[in-house]
Amino acid sequence: MPSLEDLCVATIRTLSMDAVQKANSGHPGMPMGMADAAFVLWTKHLRFNPQHPNWFNRDRFISSAGHGSMLLYSLLHLTGYDLTMDDLKQFRQWGSKTPGHPEYGHTPGVETTTGPLGQGFANGVGFAIAEAHLAALFNRNHLKPVDHFTYAIVSDGDLMEGISHEAASLAGHLKLGKLIYLYDDNKISIEGSTDLAFTEDVMIRFESYGWHTLRVDGHDRNAIDKAILEAKSVLDKPSLIACRTHIGFGSPNKQDKASSHGSPLGDEEIKLAKKAYGWDPEAHFFVPDEVRTWFNTIKDTGKQLVQEWNTILNQYTKTEPELSSDLHGIIKGELPEHWKHDIPVFQPDTNGMASRKASGLVLNAIAGRLPALIGGSADLAGSNNTWIDGVTAFSSTNYIGRNMHFGVREHAMGAIMNGMALHSGLIPYGGTFLVFSDYCKPAIRIAALSSIRAIYVLTHDSIGLGEDGPTHQPVEHLAALRAIPNTHVWRPCDANETAAAWIHSIEHRTGPSLLALTRQNLPTLQASAAYDQVCKGAYIVSSEQGAQPQAILMASGSEVHIALEAQQVLRARGVDARVLSMPCIELFRKQPVEYIEKLLPKHVTKRVAIEAASPFGWHEWVGEHGTVVGMKRFGASAPFEVLYEEFGITAEAVVKLLA
Amino acid sequence: MPSLEDLCVATIRTLSMDAVQKANSGHPGMPMGMADAAFVLWTKHLRFNPQHPNWFNRDRFISSAGHGSMLLYSLLHLTGYDLTMDDLKQFRQWGSKTPGHPEYGHTPGVETTTGPLGQGFANGVGFAIAEAHLAALFNRNHLKPVDHFTYAIVSDGDLMEGISHEAASLAGHLKLGKLIYLYDDNKISIEGSTDLAFTEDVMIRFESYGWHTLRVDGHDRNAIDKAILEAKSVLDKPSLIACRTHIGFGSPNKQDKASSHGSPLGDEEIKLAKKAYGWDPEAHFFVPDEVRTWFNTIKDTGKQLVQEWNTILNQYTKTEPELSSDLHGIIKGELPEHWKHDIPVFQPDTNGMASRKASGLVLNAIAGRLPALIGGSADLAGSNNTWIDGVTAFSSTNYIGRNMHFGVREHAMGAIMNGMALHSGLIPYGGTFLVFSDYCKPAIRIAALSSIRAIYVLTHDSIGLGEDGPTHQPVEHLAALRAIPNTHVWRPCDANETAAAWIHSIEHRTGPSLLALTRQNLPTLQASAAYDQVCKGAYIVSSEQGAQPQAILMASGSEVHIALEAQQVLRARGVDARVLSMPCIELFRKQPVEYIEKLLPKHVTKRVAIEAASPFGWHEWVGEHGTVVGMKRFGASAPFEVLYEEFGITAEAVVKLLA
Repeated sequence: MPSLEDLCVATIRTLSMDAVQKANSGHPGMPMGMADAAFVLWTKHLRFNPQHPNWFNRDRFISSAGHGSMLLYSLLHLTGYDLTMDDLKQFRQWGSKTPGHPEYGHTPGVETTTGPLGQGFANGVGFAIAEAHLAALFNRNHLKPVDHFTYAIVSDGDLMEGISHEAASLAGHLKLGKLIYLYDDNKISIEGSTDLAFTEDVMIRFESYGWHTLRVDGHDRNAIDKAILEAKSVLDKPSLIACRTHIGFGSPNKQDKASSHGSPLGDEEIKLAKKAYGWDPEAHFFVPDEVRTWFNTIKDTGKQLVQEWNTILNQYTKTEPELSSDLHGIIKGELPEHWKHDIPVFQPDTNGMASRKASGLVLNAIAGRLPALIGGSADLAGSNNTWIDGVTAFSSTNYIGRNMHFGVREHAMGAIMNGMALHSGLIPYGGTFLVFSDYCKPAIRIAALSSIRAIYVLTHDSIGLGEDGPTHQPVEHLAALRAIPNTHVWRPCDANETAAAWIHSIEHRTGPSLLALTRQNLPTLQASAAYDQVCKGAYIVSSEQGAQPQAILMASGSEVHIALEAQQVLRARGVDARVLSMPCIELFRKQPVEYIEKLLPKHVTKRVAIEAASPFGWHEWVGEHGTVVGMKRFGASAPFEVLYEEFGITAEAVVKLLA
Repeated sequence: MPSLEDLCVATIRTLSMDAVQKANSGHPGMPMGMADAAFVLWTKHLRFNPQHPNWFNRDRFISSAGHGSMLLYSLLHLTGYDLTMDDLKQFRQWGSKTPGHPEYGHTPGVETTTGPLGQGFANGVGFAIAEAHLAALFNRNHLKPVDHFTYAIVSDGDLMEGISHEAASLAGHLKLGKLIYLYDDNKISIEGSTDLAFTEDVMIRFESYGWHTLRVDGHDRNAIDKAILEAKSVLDKPSLIACRTHIGFGSPNKQDKASSHGSPLGDEEIKLAKKAYGWDPEAHFFVPDEVRTWFNTIKDTGKQLVQEWNTILNQYTKTEPELSSDLHGIIKGELPEHWKHDIPVFQPDTNGMASRKASGLVLNAIAGRLPALIGGSADLAGSNNTWIDGVTAFSSTNYIGRNMHFGVREHAMGAIMNGMALHSGLIPYGGTFLVFSDYCKPAIRIAALSSIRAIYVLTHDSIGLGEDGPTHQPVEHLAALRAIPNTHVWRPCDANETAAAWIHSIEHRTGPSLLALTRQNLPTLQASAAYDQVCKGAYIVSSEQGAQPQAILMASGSEVHIALEAQQVLRARGVDARVLSMPCIELFRKQPVEYIEKLLPKHVTKRVAIEAASPFGWHEWVGEHGTVVGMKRFGASAPFEVLYEEFGITAEAVVKLLA
């Protein structure tokens, strides 16, 4: 006789198999293999309330192996989230709540978007950092309004990806004890046995990072329960519980085979597997009554958890009235009233300063009034100007710190930022050189896809960095980043535009903002002071003298100053040009056509775009008769003034095109 | 009294300090710290001939910590490579042979371009794979024409990057015993002590990967010598020798400090350091005569090594005449005479096949006649169609295999491919989904910058992959890759264009070629058969009927068929359109203006580009009055036919724009 638990687990397995089969697409093997472990975690440990999926103090759960999405959807359905049986039947269909891989913001209970392997692993580290920081900030004595675990299921694929190393090394370093990962150790990857490519000793590897490791039979639910209990008791180390599982568990012909990984099992094999579970082979999308009844009790547990937390909050409001007000602001995600108050207005100055320096000043001005702002750099804080003065570093002995030392780990940094933002309560930022945005591009993409507010400080934004040479000089990166949907790429031309970019990035809650900033000094312009102009993405930074311009020069960042210089020379030669500063093309593209036409009147066909980067993408603005002064090749190692000359990114070159 | 060796090492240190100081830019600390270890390696172990820097059987040396370039340049200069004292004095100047970071093809003796951390580490794994494979292929009994070690210096930063995990795990798995890395364990990163972010146990970590590890005092040259000897004797495991060093060694105020990492020491501090070495504090770029004389003997050793190898080759030619002929072809990098002979011409077929499938057929047709072709997939061989039939897998017990199991390690795969190509003798290819080109983009960039022939098989190239959803559907990737200088992005529209893309990718030796291929079936067109047309990057795949087109439709890949369908409908409605297939925009951009004007006559302003990807970049071809039918947002999870409809990438949508 199967026990009630057996029935519950078989229900998870059969729902997953049936949904994949109906979609004729998907990954049944992982949900079948991890059903036991996930069941134990979700029903005996995970603290959540399906009716309040965003309850602030819930435990977070991530399925880093996003392809096993039906495991998560089955659990969400059974535990009472707003995900119906019809939703399960619509797995992988247009407009359904059950896409092929879990998508944040799309399905209640999905904490993060996963699928690109390794990122969910690093998101979890971000969740745990957020929890540790907010707990340090708000918890007082026995009153702990912030107190939850972060769990994930991670796969062989996750652990092969480099980002898992970066994130795990940092998590161990930071002693994030409330991070508990179940490793689906099923020995199968898409090409076959993991022995083909992956024979490292995962346990020893994680111990070298300072993790607490455990091994269990992934189908022994008592052992899993005990292991999770033990992991919860070790609070100074993250825990990895290796669950030795059988992919496609119960499928007589496909268990332990790659064939169960990424394809439907087939009707016949499903029948055989159902028989093996003691299931009616003809029942599809079937939930036995006793299973349904039992899972309904979970809702009650969830209600109770939230009630208990509300009691704590009430007490907290009485004993810590000020902190409590801050906490409520953090929970609501409000920006404090005067958060912009200290941001300087930079006076016109022909010497000016590097936009990275302006960024550092603005960041510091904001950070003092915006405690939710937390971040750092991938070991380039001094160069990126990402340090918050007067604030300590976040470390294993000081979770209250707000300066993150991410290490030389750009990809993990990006995915950790995503996790911190998704946790809610924090506004993360991270710095590296623009050229190394390549190293974290997969995480930027997920931020864009998931509408995450993550702010990137990307300095050394062109050949203007000089001597470090072509390995460090971005050329194609602005284009690459601008092509990502729902992403704001800022390239401010001076200190005031930099301030505007920061303000907009903080206020823009539904996608990442990337600030491309110079190493070299830039003059501070009078014209750029108006925030609302800058935030239209493009504006006239220097007008023509006559009623209509004879030519239009457009540029971003450091090259705006070349455009202004060219305008002067052209004027002397009788060509009356207009200069546009275009700090954020994505915002400009969203302006009403009238505004775009006003800045770029159709009849003015003499147009030159100037940007020390690939010309790719600029033809949208210069049109057929226009020209782009940019970089058609990689850079070189030399002082930056020489590079601008040698590569012909000069006012002289612009003038030659028009006069 | 300093010994001659002491003088030699001090010369390396002082040259490095002086060059950085003169450039007023650079990284003196690493060369000063690693001078002892590098000296021992280069003078007692490394087998090379400075007068034949490309001698095939030389040991390879990589400075993965590329910022320490002056260490390498100092060694190249002293050991007799074509790098003069004037070259050293021109460090980081325009047109010099001594750029800020080592650049392959730019400086004799530089084996690979480094700077972006972690990639040099993975390049070395590629070198070792190439050596192991070619040795297995060619060595017979005692005659070993291929028999060398691969060495690298790797830094804390290299080991923090995720790619070091991917590459190290694979190297251990493959038991690449002739790979020996010196780890510059100096405990300092840019932000300060490595304790701030990096406290993992590196030795245990590498042991978990199956590496042989050793620890030495990085300034004890005898200990280093013994450690390298021991590492050379362990042939079934790669070796990591942790050298505990002092960054900025000898600088009284900056040793062991981050301040010596990335900035010149300053004239005063240099004087103090020189005094500490027993050096004349006023001597700049100084090489003592006895040091010069001693280093000159290195040249003789090099000559002798090549002579010995030539003797082996002569014997080999006699005993293994056929293999010897193959080996000489491999060394010269020649393509065998009939390498294209088996490539099929695909007959017109309205059902056709997926371009990924055509790619697999073509790859197999080439592989039989091109033994240099070796590669695999990041655990997606079945989906990428990258498997060579009838050929075994490359494994620790079978280095003769040509099917690589890279594991879920895209970034390492890319950098390993770079290493395999740079080794010379092999043409590497690697597969993943197009969306995961993001994970290996940093390596693609280095391939482009270094003019490396690396071939990427990037399948599942659009929303056409269907149900896996937006996490797996590329949108911005074609634009991102097309923006990289010196990179060919192919998106063939059918099986014959796919064959042409493969042929061109094999013949194109000076940069990476990326093939974006469909998951879904595509009709095979008659028109596309002509290789020379396809390789112009764009051509008229279906002409207008009249003397001049009234509109031009242009597309790549799967959308060419939508353009052709639209052409038919438009014709019925009285609009006579031309259809261009644009499989490789970079090649098209290089055509003579006459050809471009012929395909896109200026007066035909009604133009529509159709590509199931970001419109970013297409305005270069459609002009101001043209339109792009593409993806302005992320995709979704659903069957692909539904997605094309819902996102409006249809013939109907194109017709609406023009009729």
